Amino acid sequence: MRKDVIFNEPATGERNIKLTVAYDGTAYHGFQRQANACGIQAILEERLAILCSHPVKITGAGRTDSGVHAYGQVVNFFTGTGGIPTERIPAAMQGLLPPDIVIREACEVPAEFHARYSAQSKVYVYHIYCQPVANPFLRQYSWHIRQPLDHRAMHQATQFIVGTHDFSAFQAAGGPERNPVRTILEAVCRPKGELIELSFWGTGFLYHMVRNLVGTLVDVGAGKRSQADFARILTGRDRNQAGITAPPQGLYLKEVYY
Amino acid sequence: MRKDVIFNEPATGERNIKLTVAYDGTAYHGFQRQANACGIQAILEERLAILCSHPVKITGAGRTDSGVHAYGQVVNFFTGTGGIPTERIPAAMQGLLPPDIVIREACEVPAEFHARYSAQSKVYVYHIYCQPVANPFLRQYSWHIRQPLDHRAMHQATQFIVGTHDFSAFQAAGGPERNPVRTILEAVCRPKGELIELSFWGTGFLYHMVRNLVGTLVDVGAGKRSQADFARILTGRDRNQAGITAPPQGLYLKEVYY
Repeated sequence: MRKDVIFNEPATGERNIKLTVAYDGTAYHGFQRQANACGIQAILEERLAILCSHPVKITGAGRTDSGVHAYGQVVNFFTGTGGIPTERIPAAMQGLLPPDIVIREACEVPAEFHARYSAQSKVYVYHIYCQPVANPFLRQYSWHIRQPLDHRAMHQATQFIVGTHDFSAFQAAGGPERNPVRTILEAVCRPKGELIELSFWGTGFLYHMVRNLVGTLVDVGAGKRSQADFARILTGRDRNQAGITAPPQGLYLKEVYY
Repeated sequence: MRKDVIFNEPATGERNIKLTVAYDGTAYHGFQRQANACGIQAILEERLAILCSHPVKITGAGRTDSGVHAYGQVVNFFTGTGGIPTERIPAAMQGLLPPDIVIREACEVPAEFHARYSAQSKVYVYHIYCQPVANPFLRQYSWHIRQPLDHRAMHQATQFIVGTHDFSAFQAAGGPERNPVRTILEAVCRPKGELIELSFWGTGFLYHMVRNLVGTLVDVGAGKRSQADFARILTGRDRNQAGITAPPQGLYLKEVYY
């Protein structure tokens, strides 16, 4: 079959296509397009353009910074009805994408679907490798902490953030958000195999919020701060009172709900 | 304290030091020193020489090929008694080694201990990620197979190799071993989280033996070969009858027993 028959058939309308994307963020300068740096968005757009034979602009559900991973990032883009069948996009893109970016699923969605604005909630998880000796296989996928952490104390502290709060204390200095109020639906800290996994399910997140929460919760786990300290930091709304920003490689955008 | 006091104190004897080493083999051309290629042995020798202030030659328990990993490789080397205390070597080397190589443990052993010749048995494990869609986080740490595999049939087939056998059918073509008889103490195939894990505990292994066994066992799991076929391949001693060599990135030298 000729290439122009497959890809350049005159469009009788547009399909809005939702992709669920997993990526290892180690090699990338984050999700978003940046000047002079390789972002995952740019790679996806470039390779989708090859597949669709027209320029493609994608919208992502959430930012991920340099080194941050995604298991369930969601993007959408528009293409004509005449191109590759939607369900064949993941397999076709596999040959075009580097192996650290995988399209897990593709489906057609209504024209008004917007990966970012239609999102109802998101789950971020954070992995801590808490052992005296480093694990070379987890160095790019977790935060290595040598001293013991009390994951039960950390879990109890996470319960203070459940609900709707002003998260100014955990917002990046100079973050872009004007309204620092967000709602956390569920927060959990538990052991998972060799790791401690923190999971945050919320309707929205401020810039660096999860990593700032984790940095402060680790202080609770290490006994440097009490659970009451953590509660006071939240209500104090002062970023300077909270802990460090946890490093990026432990963070995953796990799932986006619509 | 002056550097020459710490490191160059006249040796009144030699310590034989055993190191347990974990490494992510992704970036390396295998364990052994090679011309024009970066091996893990060369890096360890170079960085131990910095720590010990004298040239260091290490002996490794087992070869690992390019892309193959180790959780419990064992090496030994000699150094004077005046240098860094043995128990401080792992922490001191952490600052000298790249983050994909970790010394998990160091201990002093009798002068006659030899990492390779003193080894009584070794455990290799192999990880298969058996899912229709790739996982970008496991691409360097497992063999991705898209079709379903019957891990029970694979486990039953592995039982044929337990005991002492001529493993010519699973030896690398042109492999260096003259005597192809080896003893397998235990062989297991079982699901482990998202993976299928094969584990081989044996007193010795031929070059590429584990990867050749896995390549053939996957044919059993996929229904392309029966368990009786597998048994016939083993007794037939003909490499051409066996399956492909499984790719390196699923293989780990897990433990060496002395």
